[in-house]
Amino acid sequence: MRLPDYSNLAGRLVGQEMFFILDRAKQIEQSGGKVRHLELGDPELAADSLILDRTSEYLKKGNYHYTSSAGEECLKKALSTLIKNNLREDVNYSNISVAPANFLITNFLSLVCDNEDTVFILTPAFPTYFASAKMLGLNVVEFPCFPENGYIPDDSVFDKLEKTKPKAILINSANNPTGAVYSKKFLFKLATFAKDKNIWLLSDETYSLLTYEDKFYSLLGFNYDKLVVISSLSKIFSIPGYRLGFQVSQSAEFNSYSNKFLSTTLSCCPPFLQLGCSSFLENKARVDQVIENVNKEYRYRINFLFDNIPKLEGLIKKPKSAFYLFIPISKNSDGNKFCLDLLNEEKVAVTPGISFGKDFSSFLRVAFCGVFDDIKYGLNSIVNKV
Amino acid sequence: MRLPDYSNLAGRLVGQEMFFILDRAKQIEQSGGKVRHLELGDPELAADSLILDRTSEYLKKGNYHYTSSAGEECLKKALSTLIKNNLREDVNYSNISVAPANFLITNFLSLVCDNEDTVFILTPAFPTYFASAKMLGLNVVEFPCFPENGYIPDDSVFDKLEKTKPKAILINSANNPTGAVYSKKFLFKLATFAKDKNIWLLSDETYSLLTYEDKFYSLLGFNYDKLVVISSLSKIFSIPGYRLGFQVSQSAEFNSYSNKFLSTTLSCCPPFLQLGCSSFLENKARVDQVIENVNKEYRYRINFLFDNIPKLEGLIKKPKSAFYLFIPISKNSDGNKFCLDLLNEEKVAVTPGISFGKDFSSFLRVAFCGVFDDIKYGLNSIVNKV
Repeated sequence: MRLPDYSNLAGRLVGQEMFFILDRAKQIEQSGGKVRHLELGDPELAADSLILDRTSEYLKKGNYHYTSSAGEECLKKALSTLIKNNLREDVNYSNISVAPANFLITNFLSLVCDNEDTVFILTPAFPTYFASAKMLGLNVVEFPCFPENGYIPDDSVFDKLEKTKPKAILINSANNPTGAVYSKKFLFKLATFAKDKNIWLLSDETYSLLTYEDKFYSLLGFNYDKLVVISSLSKIFSIPGYRLGFQVSQSAEFNSYSNKFLSTTLSCCPPFLQLGCSSFLENKARVDQVIENVNKEYRYRINFLFDNIPKLEGLIKKPKSAFYLFIPISKNSDGNKFCLDLLNEEKVAVTPGISFGKDFSSFLRVAFCGVFDDIKYGLNSIVNKV
Repeated sequence: MRLPDYSNLAGRLVGQEMFFILDRAKQIEQSGGKVRHLELGDPELAADSLILDRTSEYLKKGNYHYTSSAGEECLKKALSTLIKNNLREDVNYSNISVAPANFLITNFLSLVCDNEDTVFILTPAFPTYFASAKMLGLNVVEFPCFPENGYIPDDSVFDKLEKTKPKAILINSANNPTGAVYSKKFLFKLATFAKDKNIWLLSDETYSLLTYEDKFYSLLGFNYDKLVVISSLSKIFSIPGYRLGFQVSQSAEFNSYSNKFLSTTLSCCPPFLQLGCSSFLENKARVDQVIENVNKEYRYRINFLFDNIPKLEGLIKKPKSAFYLFIPISKNSDGNKFCLDLLNEEKVAVTPGISFGKDFSSFLRVAFCGVFDDIKYGLNSIVNKV
């Protein structure tokens, strides 16, 4: 759609499509009502005080100047160590760039895709993949994965890839919203396929350190110049407001383009935030403790919810990673209407499934990382309504 | 240029073209040399401790969650008050969006221009205007303003505008790098022209509170839906690493598109940084004091430099705003080579004039906001070389 006076890009913007839920929630709150927020992946857990203390120290020491567009060297080194310690992969710190993970999706798509190129997304998937791809005028092909297969794609994905010949593939294991964790075998096969066919591959590993059952396999060790891995400090360290994510690419060329894109757009990320996180990450004992505690907490929550809300087990399996429940509602009901009714009647906000892919209109996503009492209340309302 | 495997956009990225200077400076420093940095508009002045204290408090109180894409409401209200108190303009806070000012240039151009549209830039001008416009595939028309006229455009700008029929005009008063401050008469005439011809207008007023002689006139009071004003907290409050700027538009439609663009790309800016600044801005006495002190300091620096480096007056006039000196070198010399020689021989880093527009290759920019002893040394080297 060509808008009068605005760009084609403006006409393709969808933003966050579930805004109608947030808008309605705000209305309710502004007129004095209480809303239980189960719609955002925004951890209620307190961040480790060492992160906050170190950040404050660096701020007060004067680290509020410009810094490198690709990130502070010490943070990149600390991230390389974090990866080594937890994912057993060797990453050269100079292959790391620091930026908000959400922005790194647009960075990737902008650098590798032109208007009308095809991008292949395994769904259900994080809404920004669609919003960014649509904004850039890309043709999105969705390959839906369903609960019957544990949300794991079967081999027909390769037939569809052959047919659609995409410029890029976007995958997300550990998965938001399903909690699915892809096997090493599948990931290796997919990456090998991409390499054979010269297709760009974005592996979003934001939830790699939050897995409860199946072993997580990272593509970081896969040798391919057109593979970009992104991740974030937001979820595992409960600091989404820091806006610090990172990407890893083995390609000096990709990193050079990426650096130019970041310098043209963002300039840099706040240095004292980077230094505060870096200083925390250098304390291995403390980092290990946080990762253990956070995993324990979410595992506890999953078990508690399934033990105390018996109807849940009839609806879904326990998620294997991340902190979401992707719940099916009656096939014939309008998912957006269901979510709006839930908000109006029960004052419980969740994300409509359609935000995660066109095949998921009869689902909704519950985040269980927020205020736990609200989650218990909200989930009880939901299971009695679906 | 179509790159193999990369997007057209990637091929159009220039990043910060003066990187060759930064790269060489880094080399010198890594091999133990000292470089005097006169190339970045990165204030040496300490930020007010109230900003830092409040930021730390909000951080430790737990304000590190997601927040609104368009910015914290209290910060937008505080910015509206800052504008009212210092620029005497009434701005409805709901017309303000918060994001890094550098990013707001790309936000504006993305929302209003399509590939091959023409954007008209009064030069010399901030390098990101060119970098962002080129990245987006826009046709850049430069209208150069020269020192003979105090870097103020004459009326031939309207003839050139008539001829080029741009989609958007980008202006910057108070100006980086020249310090020129446009008259109310000229700005009003230009804005009226844009309105008559239905052309988008971006007015970059980042240095509005740093003017030393001529009275600053803001376009904020001009009634036009296609006018967007951007500004920043980085320069006046000496906190570039906070990455907090803002834009004002009277158009609900523009603000809505902008909000979607920001949510798709950045999600949001760190809330504790926004709240810390908001809290500081609510203390009018303190804000007034900072603005007064900062202006006094830069005015002192200008006078000191012109009093103590007699050759300076033969080269340029005192800047009327901001904290840069835009110095002509011999017309026949290669500006980039001059800057590289200066760095190699005198260990003084400055920005080549070509970064500010194609007509300014025989200029260089000195920032006098950094370490003052380095600036004195560096400027003495420069005036003895030009």
